[in-house]
Amino acid sequence: MPEQEYETVRAEVADRILTVTLNRPEKLNAFNPQMMTDLLDVLDAADADDDIRVIVVTGAGRGFCAGADVSSGGSSFDHRKAGAWHRDTGGRVALRLFSSTKPVIAAINGPAAGVGASMTLPMDIRLASTSAKFGFVFARRGIVPESAASWFLPRAVGMQRAMEWVATGRVFGPEEALAAGLVRSVHPPEELLPAAYELAREIAENTSAISVALSRQMMWRMLGESHPMAAHRLDSRIMSQIGGGPDPVEGVQSFLAKRPPAFPGRVSKDMPPLYPWWQEEEFRPLEDQAQAPEGQG
Amino acid sequence: MPEQEYETVRAEVADRILTVTLNRPEKLNAFNPQMMTDLLDVLDAADADDDIRVIVVTGAGRGFCAGADVSSGGSSFDHRKAGAWHRDTGGRVALRLFSSTKPVIAAINGPAAGVGASMTLPMDIRLASTSAKFGFVFARRGIVPESAASWFLPRAVGMQRAMEWVATGRVFGPEEALAAGLVRSVHPPEELLPAAYELAREIAENTSAISVALSRQMMWRMLGESHPMAAHRLDSRIMSQIGGGPDPVEGVQSFLAKRPPAFPGRVSKDMPPLYPWWQEEEFRPLEDQAQAPEGQG
Amino acid sequence: MPEQEYETVRAEVADRILTVTLNRPEKLNAFNPQMMTDLLDVLDAADADDDIRVIVVTGAGRGFCAGADVSSGGSSFDHRKAGAWHRDTGGRVALRLFSSTKPVIAAINGPAAGVGASMTLPMDIRLASTSAKFGFVFARRGIVPESAASWFLPRAVGMQRAMEWVATGRVFGPEEALAAGLVRSVHPPEELLPAAYELAREIAENTSAISVALSRQMMWRMLGESHPMAAHRLDSRIMSQIGGGPDPVEGVQSFLAKRPPAFPGRVSKDMPPLYPWWQEEEFRPLEDQAQAPEGQG
Repeated sequence: MPEQEYETVRAEVADRILTVTLNRPEKLNAFNPQMMTDLLDVLDAADADDDIRVIVVTGAGRGFCAGADVSSGGSSFDHRKAGAWHRDTGGRVALRLFSSTKPVIAAINGPAAGVGASMTLPMDIRLASTSAKFGFVFARRGIVPESAASWFLPRAVGMQRAMEWVATGRVFGPEEALAAGLVRSVHPPEELLPAAYELAREIAENTSAISVALSRQMMWRMLGESHPMAAHRLDSRIMSQIGGGPDPVEGVQSFLAKRPPAFPGRVSKDMPPLYPWWQEEEFRPLEDQAQAPEGQG
Repeated sequence: MPEQEYETVRAEVADRILTVTLNRPEKLNAFNPQMMTDLLDVLDAADADDDIRVIVVTGAGRGFCAGADVSSGGSSFDHRKAGAWHRDTGGRVALRLFSSTKPVIAAINGPAAGVGASMTLPMDIRLASTSAKFGFVFARRGIVPESAASWFLPRAVGMQRAMEWVATGRVFGPEEALAAGLVRSVHPPEELLPAAYELAREIAENTSAISVALSRQMMWRMLGESHPMAAHRLDSRIMSQIGGGPDPVEGVQSFLAKRPPAFPGRVSKDMPPLYPWWQEEEFRPLEDQAQAPEGQG
Repeated sequence: MPEQEYETVRAEVADRILTVTLNRPEKLNAFNPQMMTDLLDVLDAADADDDIRVIVVTGAGRGFCAGADVSSGGSSFDHRKAGAWHRDTGGRVALRLFSSTKPVIAAINGPAAGVGASMTLPMDIRLASTSAKFGFVFARRGIVPESAASWFLPRAVGMQRAMEWVATGRVFGPEEALAAGLVRSVHPPEELLPAAYELAREIAENTSAISVALSRQMMWRMLGESHPMAAHRLDSRIMSQIGGGPDPVEGVQSFLAKRPPAFPGRVSKDMPPLYPWWQEEEFRPLEDQAQAPEGQG
């Protein structure tokens, strides 16, 4: 991945870990359309780069992401012009994260509100600083959960906690986030990034990139399957396509030899033929769905 | 909502909070068909009344709800006459709660067993008194989980805990309920209702009724969607329909002015055109489903 | 169930509890195709035997199950010969457990890695010894989660924890498993089986076998339903078929008389006519699914 300039984020690679830093510190890294574009671009670049194993997302300065930039005032959420084809910008980032072949770790260093909180839900693992704050504040702004948070949040913390946070719109601290399972650990500010990197290295140094890319998609997508047979059919077929290949041979041989593995597989070239095994749905307006009541919209 | 008399429940409104009190204290508020009718009526009335923002459900006397009234003895669960068209009474309450536009808080003041426990699952948030007890006792009575609890319970506490409670039929206390995430907090008896009202007021005073009504349905219904694209399509379209309207304008302006919001939107009249975006399925016997093996029933 | 000899497992019945002991202690009970066959056979026998109410699975010696037997070296996972029709052996055990009419308790006495960990996920309740260890080590071997673990694991512990365990492939102890909800309790080694048996007896002595068999399938299968109406239709119909029968009569009468119940119902003969209410999907290769992109495989 060529070192690249983005307007609203910084992207740096070290130890096969890409750090994406939301970088509008004077606005607590408030989200705007340019940040969407930059995040989509950096995630595309990360997927294409076999030297990147893990992505860490954090914020510059004292905030993580204060939510949508509402400096345009009362009309901030007025998308009437786009009509039925309006696409939520946070949701485009969320769906891009969902499809990532690299695991994504959120290192939440400060306030994460609105889209700043909901954009972390499709990231795989969330670590928080003791100075983090969270708020699913949508109902306090007269809007609704976006970034597909209505799908992600109840799956992450259960309906009871999700409804309390969304219905009150309350801002809460890292201990409440930890107790609810929203974040997996809480760290003093100066130990947050080191902890995120330690976890990222644990992935990068021990596991096959092919295995992790496949596993990530298997697990996210099996959330939508009604019967474990879907997983059985999928993992059986994946194993028959990759099981005799270089990564499983290295995995078993290094294990038997009690040495660290050196997996040769590259996500860019060595994914099994069945990948992707799904057809990604294109965006279309809600009114297009078959089950929509007549005369809507 | 006109102050109304119900045979088995009391309904009182204060501070934009409707308190529904199960009111057969001499029977620990055991559930019977009249209580179903009364609960369906009071939930309809609450949905139609814009002066109600939140519903709190509790029990009169020392019980919450001791379960189905089995005073008719061994034939209590004999519904053979109704045959394939029999509808579980607790399930009708559960589905009505599922469709509520107002958030529902259960203040579980004492024993909640059988339908008394399962009817709280489609309520959004559960608080318990230290004198609460819980029992998914169905298998001890020779019956099965009703009130659609087979759908709600594993989603609330995970399959492992749900199976332990259902397979043993054990009665357990509030600390076990809290550890499992069945309830969100435990309170001394005299502090239970105050805690429920504090949470209810936090919702009523800070958030848009339209936002909360939409969010509640978005989250419950997205549990059934297989891919976050469904949520992205939905929240995008909702935002294009409401984002330029009065509640989001007030939400942003009050936020920027650092004053409490005063949202004008009314659930009775101001929901976006796409609401409801689903077609509610009518009840029909199980045998009608396409995938039923031939010759059943 | 006739006392039977199996090559890789021991099966013993006492107190209406079947104990299945994985029995290759010299290999930490590593999983092989014979163990699959033996487990499928013993689960079939258990389902057919009304004297068995609960199944407890544990390991002989100091291990639970160390994972797939990789003593054949680098080619251990090479299933290319079977091609599209390859079926993961662990997955066949997982699906058989999923369909069991008896509740299954895992008493995890030692290391449970790879398929040794994932085979416990379709078991209903997991207890661990303080000397247990867990590892979803697939990505360290260059392979992917099998035994349909991509379906079961995120439903058991949430996506965040599942992804951390799978992406790192890390081995972790019982306290981490307990905190994440993977196991429901941790016990000193000598107290593990007694605790499992105590729980099993609590089921066997207090509840209807018919109720438990139906409830188990209701809850697992409702995980795949998008709307609680599915559960309402199902529990209503089950109640109209069993509610007037001998087990509910005994359940209510014993409750009113405050004596232990003696349920007459037998799973082999007395299940309601609608059981099973689903048609079990046959295995077929992934490429057969309608939504597969053209030209795959």
